[in-house]
Amino acid sequence: MEGRQCYDLLVIGGGSGGLACAKEAAQLGKKVAVVDYVEPSPRGTRWGLGGTCVNVGCIPKKLMHQAALLGGMIHDASHYGWKVAQPPHDWRKMAEAVQNHVKSLNWGHRVQLQDRKVKYFNFKASFVNPHMVCGVSKGGEETLLSADHIVIATGGRPRYPTHIEGALEYGITSDDIFWLKESPGKTLVVGASYVALECAGFLTGLGLDTTVMIRSVPLRAFDQQMASLVTEHMAVHGTRILRGCTPLRVERLSDGRLQVTWVDLASDKKDTGTFDTVLWAVGRVPETRGLNLEKAGVRTNPNTQKILVDAQEATSVPHIYAIGDVAEGRPELTPTAIMAGRLLAQRLCSRSSDLMDYDNVPTTVFTPLEYGCVGLSEEEAVARHGEERVEVYHAYYKPLEFVVPERDASQCYIKMVCLREPPQLVLGLHFLGPNAGEVTQGFALGIKCGASYQQVMRTVGIHPTCAEEVAKLRISKRSGLDPTVTGC
Amino acid sequence: MEGRQCYDLLVIGGGSGGLACAKEAAQLGKKVAVVDYVEPSPRGTRWGLGGTCVNVGCIPKKLMHQAALLGGMIHDASHYGWKVAQPPHDWRKMAEAVQNHVKSLNWGHRVQLQDRKVKYFNFKASFVNPHMVCGVSKGGEETLLSADHIVIATGGRPRYPTHIEGALEYGITSDDIFWLKESPGKTLVVGASYVALECAGFLTGLGLDTTVMIRSVPLRAFDQQMASLVTEHMAVHGTRILRGCTPLRVERLSDGRLQVTWVDLASDKKDTGTFDTVLWAVGRVPETRGLNLEKAGVRTNPNTQKILVDAQEATSVPHIYAIGDVAEGRPELTPTAIMAGRLLAQRLCSRSSDLMDYDNVPTTVFTPLEYGCVGLSEEEAVARHGEERVEVYHAYYKPLEFVVPERDASQCYIKMVCLREPPQLVLGLHFLGPNAGEVTQGFALGIKCGASYQQVMRTVGIHPTCAEEVAKLRISKRSGLDPTVTGC
Repeated sequence: MEGRQCYDLLVIGGGSGGLACAKEAAQLGKKVAVVDYVEPSPRGTRWGLGGTCVNVGCIPKKLMHQAALLGGMIHDASHYGWKVAQPPHDWRKMAEAVQNHVKSLNWGHRVQLQDRKVKYFNFKASFVNPHMVCGVSKGGEETLLSADHIVIATGGRPRYPTHIEGALEYGITSDDIFWLKESPGKTLVVGASYVALECAGFLTGLGLDTTVMIRSVPLRAFDQQMASLVTEHMAVHGTRILRGCTPLRVERLSDGRLQVTWVDLASDKKDTGTFDTVLWAVGRVPETRGLNLEKAGVRTNPNTQKILVDAQEATSVPHIYAIGDVAEGRPELTPTAIMAGRLLAQRLCSRSSDLMDYDNVPTTVFTPLEYGCVGLSEEEAVARHGEERVEVYHAYYKPLEFVVPERDASQCYIKMVCLREPPQLVLGLHFLGPNAGEVTQGFALGIKCGASYQQVMRTVGIHPTCAEEVAKLRISKRSGLDPTVTGC
Repeated sequence: MEGRQCYDLLVIGGGSGGLACAKEAAQLGKKVAVVDYVEPSPRGTRWGLGGTCVNVGCIPKKLMHQAALLGGMIHDASHYGWKVAQPPHDWRKMAEAVQNHVKSLNWGHRVQLQDRKVKYFNFKASFVNPHMVCGVSKGGEETLLSADHIVIATGGRPRYPTHIEGALEYGITSDDIFWLKESPGKTLVVGASYVALECAGFLTGLGLDTTVMIRSVPLRAFDQQMASLVTEHMAVHGTRILRGCTPLRVERLSDGRLQVTWVDLASDKKDTGTFDTVLWAVGRVPETRGLNLEKAGVRTNPNTQKILVDAQEATSVPHIYAIGDVAEGRPELTPTAIMAGRLLAQRLCSRSSDLMDYDNVPTTVFTPLEYGCVGLSEEEAVARHGEERVEVYHAYYKPLEFVVPERDASQCYIKMVCLREPPQLVLGLHFLGPNAGEVTQGFALGIKCGASYQQVMRTVGIHPTCAEEVAKLRISKRSGLDPTVTGC
């Protein structure tokens, strides 16, 4: 065991939240170290610094989503006069480009830490006591690290349904899909999470035969009307969706393909299908198991294994903090973890007392038709305020760009959830359509500034855009009028 | 002359503003008529109901812009694994699709007027006296129309530089370009307006040899740093830009092509070039000349020919109003005219006293790299508040989607103009990048709600989007730090 090293701040986990916190603290003059170690996936996939978002999340996901969208654009292009037929897709080429970009980001993170004089250890960390962490290198060497403040930002990993026979042996997860060198081929995606729907969406868009198996409700944490439209759009555009089904076992056939047996929960009937790839997207587990949290006295929620935190991001041990996906009750989103990490560093290292505001955090699901939202779902608004006090404005609209290629716009839909009493404070916005993330971001600022429905109506539109439809939402659900936008 | 017809409200001009005003008034129970007549362009182009936006503006422009963008998307697609080579473009097919959509909108406007019981006359209108308008049909029949309130919403038409020899004979304008059945071929666009740059942009994108000739400053009414980046991007991406030049004459060669002679104003040297099409985009003139405004006593600005209006949209004659492009000092934007028309109808026909707010009107220039803005330019902010009281935050950023196809992002730039004093009220936002219109709309709501820089910084980003870069603008110009965004 090497000699003990002391830091002002030790961050365990080199993902979005941890790196942001470490860099901010270093910039504020503190002596900071980051300990990061990526346990390879059961399939053996491994990656570099940056955490889930960079390596097996947002970044490769958005790039493969974009690849899939471009397939649709080629189809559009032929209607706009380009003499082009729908070409085949080369997974290998796309994957190499995506993986190269991710590797460049890994490198960029290393350089940034160096530039800011943050010490980086490629160690697996576990607590020895509340002030000391033991880091184990790949070669098995141990180093003791101590710090005044310790931030846990180890994130989470995909859950394997180990009770299903063959799941671990033959299945992959989102930890693997972005690193495949060859096309996954005909794929079964199991799960109802946004990860499941996003993966199934881009696989379908890339021309692969794709099935999603959903046990109960898709996008459970989201507005359920929007969730229905998302899956409806996917079903219409080629993703096979099996609802109310759950897998029983996965077997490998003699030709190497995977045979999945599942049960339809309503009828209790069994069925089988053959796939090249089975992708589990049935949730994530926080990375708390190897940390020896009990030696530090850090408490977790026994149901979720997540670390219990307060508004200061402090755990049950006052000088140990947890941010990002590993912390109980936090949105599992990169920008939230980054902001929380940065604000925590400011509170620890300068005179700031600014707390992270976890309300009105916007997000976007990058399904083939994107779904952006901020604030309350309709269900949440009704639960909090009562149906009588909530007014929902909505519209089905047709993006101008859809007209020429005669794209179906049946699921292009917007709703704004407001208080009914004037000036009708906006509680939530839900946007389903192209570029939903780009559209939603600015409205998130508006809602942060306390926008009312009246102010939305007095905002001049930018014509012709999809976003202007938000500023034109005139039909309330209560009125019963047809919310279909017609004409100019 | 037929018998005189009486209305509560008579709207002259069936464009965006006029139709919105007429429909709103009819819905509020008034007897309303719209008089609309399209004088064919000097080239003989004619179109239906709906005004500039629908027929020779926003709608066909955005569709041709989209067609051009799709050409770039095909190039991107090959990098994302689609086995596709850059195909040729068929103008005829695109134009037919665009024109068919416009015709369907013409029809939609007719149906909407009918549904709302607005009487429509395809008449050329001129005032007989302050309460009476004479409408002349195509066949020359005259009808007298009188009304309690009259709204002038006749918009404008492209200006021809008639002092230039051959300009009128051989040139076309934006009134014609969208209705060409055949490709314009090698094109000279003359002008520095957003119309000039947008047209040159999509022509270049469709693969045509395109030159823009600019006498002095491009996008004069816009933030000049942003304007420079817009033209810089165009120049890098294939549009030839001739600066400080002005055409002297246009001649038709024996092979049918057009020879343009111009002068470089700095060197006074003459030069010539040969083009298939010369497109004038040198500004617009309000459609006031045929109205006999003097018979009604409606005053215009002798310099601009535009109708003088007050905050109520009233002209010098209290019961006659003017909205949209024909009114002095108004932004020439469809959504502004629509909102002004609707609010005017509400004031005239119900108990409303709500005035149109012409501040913080967002807009987007649909050049190949789109430029969205709302609020003050940096120049305006400095002029109003003084340099010492203004803080400008800015960033050069790289859209994630650009990485795989190795697109140049040198001009992807954002700046936010704020008051310097905390909480640093946001005065203006300027966004240059893909989907700028979609990005800018929501921020316009935020600025309408009095957003401060502090609130922008506390708004959580949506990752990965371009819009999130707005919420990450940390570098002030005053700091002198490098505003290039690196890494995640």
